[in-house]
Amino acid sequence: MNGFGVIYRVTTFGESHGAAVGGVIEGMPAGIEIDIEKVQRELSRRRPGQSSIVTPRNEPDRINVLSGLLDGVTTGMPIGFMVENTNQHSSDYANIKDTFRPSHADYTYQTKYGIRDYRGGGRSSARETISRVVAGAFAKQALEKLGITVYAYTSQVGDIVLDKPYTELNLDSIDNNIVRCPDAEVAQRMIDLISEVKSQGDTIGGVVTGVIKGVPSGLGEPVFGKLHARLGDAMLGINAVKGFDYGEGFASAGMRGSEMIDTFVSENGRITTTTNHSGGIQGGISNGNDIYFRVAFKPVATLLRDVDTVDTNGNSTVLRAKGRHDPCVLPRAVPIVEAMAAMVILDNYLFNKTTHL
Amino acid sequence: MNGFGVIYRVTTFGESHGAAVGGVIEGMPAGIEIDIEKVQRELSRRRPGQSSIVTPRNEPDRINVLSGLLDGVTTGMPIGFMVENTNQHSSDYANIKDTFRPSHADYTYQTKYGIRDYRGGGRSSARETISRVVAGAFAKQALEKLGITVYAYTSQVGDIVLDKPYTELNLDSIDNNIVRCPDAEVAQRMIDLISEVKSQGDTIGGVVTGVIKGVPSGLGEPVFGKLHARLGDAMLGINAVKGFDYGEGFASAGMRGSEMIDTFVSENGRITTTTNHSGGIQGGISNGNDIYFRVAFKPVATLLRDVDTVDTNGNSTVLRAKGRHDPCVLPRAVPIVEAMAAMVILDNYLFNKTTHL
Amino acid sequence: MNGFGVIYRVTTFGESHGAAVGGVIEGMPAGIEIDIEKVQRELSRRRPGQSSIVTPRNEPDRINVLSGLLDGVTTGMPIGFMVENTNQHSSDYANIKDTFRPSHADYTYQTKYGIRDYRGGGRSSARETISRVVAGAFAKQALEKLGITVYAYTSQVGDIVLDKPYTELNLDSIDNNIVRCPDAEVAQRMIDLISEVKSQGDTIGGVVTGVIKGVPSGLGEPVFGKLHARLGDAMLGINAVKGFDYGEGFASAGMRGSEMIDTFVSENGRITTTTNHSGGIQGGISNGNDIYFRVAFKPVATLLRDVDTVDTNGNSTVLRAKGRHDPCVLPRAVPIVEAMAAMVILDNYLFNKTTHL
Amino acid sequence: MNGFGVIYRVTTFGESHGAAVGGVIEGMPAGIEIDIEKVQRELSRRRPGQSSIVTPRNEPDRINVLSGLLDGVTTGMPIGFMVENTNQHSSDYANIKDTFRPSHADYTYQTKYGIRDYRGGGRSSARETISRVVAGAFAKQALEKLGITVYAYTSQVGDIVLDKPYTELNLDSIDNNIVRCPDAEVAQRMIDLISEVKSQGDTIGGVVTGVIKGVPSGLGEPVFGKLHARLGDAMLGINAVKGFDYGEGFASAGMRGSEMIDTFVSENGRITTTTNHSGGIQGGISNGNDIYFRVAFKPVATLLRDVDTVDTNGNSTVLRAKGRHDPCVLPRAVPIVEAMAAMVILDNYLFNKTTHL
Repeated sequence: MNGFGVIYRVTTFGESHGAAVGGVIEGMPAGIEIDIEKVQRELSRRRPGQSSIVTPRNEPDRINVLSGLLDGVTTGMPIGFMVENTNQHSSDYANIKDTFRPSHADYTYQTKYGIRDYRGGGRSSARETISRVVAGAFAKQALEKLGITVYAYTSQVGDIVLDKPYTELNLDSIDNNIVRCPDAEVAQRMIDLISEVKSQGDTIGGVVTGVIKGVPSGLGEPVFGKLHARLGDAMLGINAVKGFDYGEGFASAGMRGSEMIDTFVSENGRITTTTNHSGGIQGGISNGNDIYFRVAFKPVATLLRDVDTVDTNGNSTVLRAKGRHDPCVLPRAVPIVEAMAAMVILDNYLFNKTTHL
Repeated sequence: MNGFGVIYRVTTFGESHGAAVGGVIEGMPAGIEIDIEKVQRELSRRRPGQSSIVTPRNEPDRINVLSGLLDGVTTGMPIGFMVENTNQHSSDYANIKDTFRPSHADYTYQTKYGIRDYRGGGRSSARETISRVVAGAFAKQALEKLGITVYAYTSQVGDIVLDKPYTELNLDSIDNNIVRCPDAEVAQRMIDLISEVKSQGDTIGGVVTGVIKGVPSGLGEPVFGKLHARLGDAMLGINAVKGFDYGEGFASAGMRGSEMIDTFVSENGRITTTTNHSGGIQGGISNGNDIYFRVAFKPVATLLRDVDTVDTNGNSTVLRAKGRHDPCVLPRAVPIVEAMAAMVILDNYLFNKTTHL
Repeated sequence: MNGFGVIYRVTTFGESHGAAVGGVIEGMPAGIEIDIEKVQRELSRRRPGQSSIVTPRNEPDRINVLSGLLDGVTTGMPIGFMVENTNQHSSDYANIKDTFRPSHADYTYQTKYGIRDYRGGGRSSARETISRVVAGAFAKQALEKLGITVYAYTSQVGDIVLDKPYTELNLDSIDNNIVRCPDAEVAQRMIDLISEVKSQGDTIGGVVTGVIKGVPSGLGEPVFGKLHARLGDAMLGINAVKGFDYGEGFASAGMRGSEMIDTFVSENGRITTTTNHSGGIQGGISNGNDIYFRVAFKPVATLLRDVDTVDTNGNSTVLRAKGRHDPCVLPRAVPIVEAMAAMVILDNYLFNKTTHL
Repeated sequence: MNGFGVIYRVTTFGESHGAAVGGVIEGMPAGIEIDIEKVQRELSRRRPGQSSIVTPRNEPDRINVLSGLLDGVTTGMPIGFMVENTNQHSSDYANIKDTFRPSHADYTYQTKYGIRDYRGGGRSSARETISRVVAGAFAKQALEKLGITVYAYTSQVGDIVLDKPYTELNLDSIDNNIVRCPDAEVAQRMIDLISEVKSQGDTIGGVVTGVIKGVPSGLGEPVFGKLHARLGDAMLGINAVKGFDYGEGFASAGMRGSEMIDTFVSENGRITTTTNHSGGIQGGISNGNDIYFRVAFKPVATLLRDVDTVDTNGNSTVLRAKGRHDPCVLPRAVPIVEAMAAMVILDNYLFNKTTHL
């Protein structure tokens, strides 16, 4: 299950400390001019070492496109790509070869496969998300031609919650600070919290909010391909994600129908709604309103302090994490959420073309 | 996109007011004795008219198995099934033929397909979930042989929240009351709230909690088929669902790593964890602990009072809902959540058999 | 594996002697007026008892559409359908319950599943092809709107070979005789041979030739979805098929490149070829020329004479076939070949719409 | 459509003159020791320049495994791989940039995508089959553990037909000559014919026969995943293939049922058949007998002589092929046929594990 998407589809490969991570993008429409530097820029937004509140690992993460372009234009052929793993410190992981790190995938991979690539978490490492960011960056360039824009930002870190709706934020300012929260004051508090948590050798969770603007009505495929189910599937597959909701989401559980329904009105001959509690999707199909959703990330499981655990023989041991780790994944998760959302929307846009003869 | 699952897979058909709803189940293992009455019982838990707090429509919803069984035993062949639509009052819907009901799928279906079956919501009706319940009921009988049990219960209705963890509840008492909440006192408050809301012609949302016991470790397929992503996809596809989380879920966004990690210990030579914040899944693969998750349902969009809306020409109009509708979907959603969860687990159980030669 | 197609897709169910055969069609474009009588007509071309050279079983085989149409127009929703099994003589098969019929699927089904529906061959019966014919009949009505026509005819029965190319035949005369060969003289010889073979209690094989006219250039998806590979897959899945080729097919193995290439010329400003050895497909993509192909059918395995075999315990026994059986499947295979071809073309037509943004 | 297989699945990328060809293998069972040199050996059997009767291009084609192995053992993770394109003479193709080569994919790619990578045929080049050979070479190593062996050999070149059944040949001698025909005398005549054809600047077609030994009964998934349909689909996707049959194949069209059926007998308590006209598959499921099939290849479309054609504007022109081309693909097709067959069998072997709980 290393592929995602139906028409626009990426199939990925790669472990943290193997030769490379990469993948194959299928279904990219033909004839689209690609700016590879934009792809690189997305990778750089995801990469470690970009600021003081993420892991200080320094990985350049250069995109290498192997096929599918002719003079920078898509040919309709699959786009093979890879990013080499250049900054491998396998020795950092020698001590976990025979130990199960708590709340990591070590134990479950070992149980399922009978073998695991222990170096840096192997396939379960967040390094795998590089391929998602690449596939999303290509998708974004197609969506751009359709006037569709995907945004994501950090809306919660620990108990610091950005409680303004996205409509009151300047989404073009997301990258203005290192935590990627488009409210300077809240961003600073988040940064302070992450710094504090880091100094304690601890980690902290948070929420990324996604917003998609310009989606035409009609995208999404009932009943098992509803647009929000595709988005949820996409987000839940990202490392460390524990929850997804859209529109009013979990809050709608506490609401009455009379508060929740979006009243239809006609504006300049076009039918629209006075509110958007639904989150831009009704019956699994986009209605032309903004789509917005939330993605909950748990705190990183690797603590920079001693933790009790067991070795692969079941003996008690104490784990001393080496290497460099993120105290909070949120800042680096933002481009990953955007990437997955972009893939879902492009895939559904293309699929929707088959609705009529 | 009318199919769900990879190995154990159901493909469904049917509109609210067509001849029948039904589907085809593929991948049901051969040689399993099926108790059709158990399937019927699940349908009856879902059906309208079963209590005072759901819609009073009286639909018997009898399962009709068309293939795949020989003397009550599965043959490995696809199981065709249908449930006839016997209680159709199409006339109840004549008034919505040319009107878009707010927060329903009328507008999006019309936009996408250029045509819509307006009778009872057509394909977007919750009647479609009958096929899910049937496919889930077959899956449950296979899971039973594996010692896996799926539970779901109402844990929130409006502002009434059952705040005990599932571990403190008697999950065998879920069906003891009509709201399907395994705490008699909280259940009564939920019932009272639903009755009150109903008397006001309004509706109310809520949360269903799911619990799966007995899942062996090893189920789930990284990186795009993580077990929780499959569960989330399954739940988000159910009508009226707005959110999904598992384990600590959205609460984990506010937690520190030191609070969230599940410490490994060895008990009687078996590796286990002292806590289960992860919700039984790590790295997308089950670890043998209980799996638990939440599903948020919005309030039903059909109010039994006048609502403002527009007709298909964009003219303002007032909609007076006819027919019989649920003030709260939660009681009837419980068996649907269970069904989808059962399908996901069986599908992943079978897929996992391909991990080794 | 009971589904066929990517966008236009049918998932089927049903055994020979169960309650019904049927399926679910997905991806039928919305807004197409359907003539159900045309679907019924295709079923009648396939049904037993239609002439003296096929099995005399009398099965009316009435199509029953359960969903997906509103006032006879497709809504974009899945089309559930079934055909009841009304003429079941299960007692005819009591003698084969514990016997493996030679060159039937009895042994392999028993080995694979550990259980088999012995009545009439169960799922392996050609009765399963009813669902293919229905899905193909719907596809044909969509193709009609695109100016695409699918033909098939009997071009060989035993050693009687129709050696004219399709271009010299009147394809509108295919149904003028009971063997469905568009050459009256050859048809009569085929009919005579079948009658002779039948009188001997034996059976005979043959070839169906398919021709598809009006296919626009551009259909087919390299490299694993080449149009001819999809056609081949479709045909090889039909009961009793042993081979498929297209264009010059197996004959091209004996040819030189200088004989085989189709020279491009420009006619009235349109590029075309002087010959069509390729069979309308180059590099897996249609080029606008006619597509033509051959499908080889083995002789029916059920002989109306005593045959030596073993019972399920491996003891030698003699099988005396009861019931009514076809001496030659070719006449009834013609509509099935057409149906599968129609599905492939419609599916690829729809998929091709995703090539460009 | 760049992926093939359900459980064991390869997704490929790459053009003739891009940076590399390669792919991602999913579903490789965990815990299998891989001999990379064996993979390389299969690539070398496919590579150009290996003998006097194939193209003299000299491409080393070194396999580069990027993920999925730990100390040479499969981890259950996807295997990313690539082979760099080192011997690119793009200038050889400058003259075809604006010309449609007859019976190549130039015209259809241009029509479908509106753009084509003209260099060496781009994606439609047989260089794409490198990825198939790699995925097949991995599959073979898994099959070896199951005692399954896949053979293929050249059984026809032009009018020279090897008319012995495979049972009378020494299949271990296939690589003893450069045309890969396991009959020294016939092989020499084939080689002579290819040399003659080459000297005329012409090309010639042929047939590859495949044989699979050791397949257990039970592989194949009715009704749309029949084992022979999967094999046919696999073979028809190989460049230049025009036909596929199995068992008696097209010959069965001329046979009577009494000649074709395989009589069951009991040998040492094991049920087997006295003949194998069926080709090891009945009802789409393997029966334990050898599987054998034929694959028809057309003559290569690139002639080393002047050919008439048109340019992309439709003007008549004469094409003078440059570069180095195969007069006959058969010798190099043998490992490709083996590779595709190996993938199909492994995929079905794994899928069959899901038949029972």
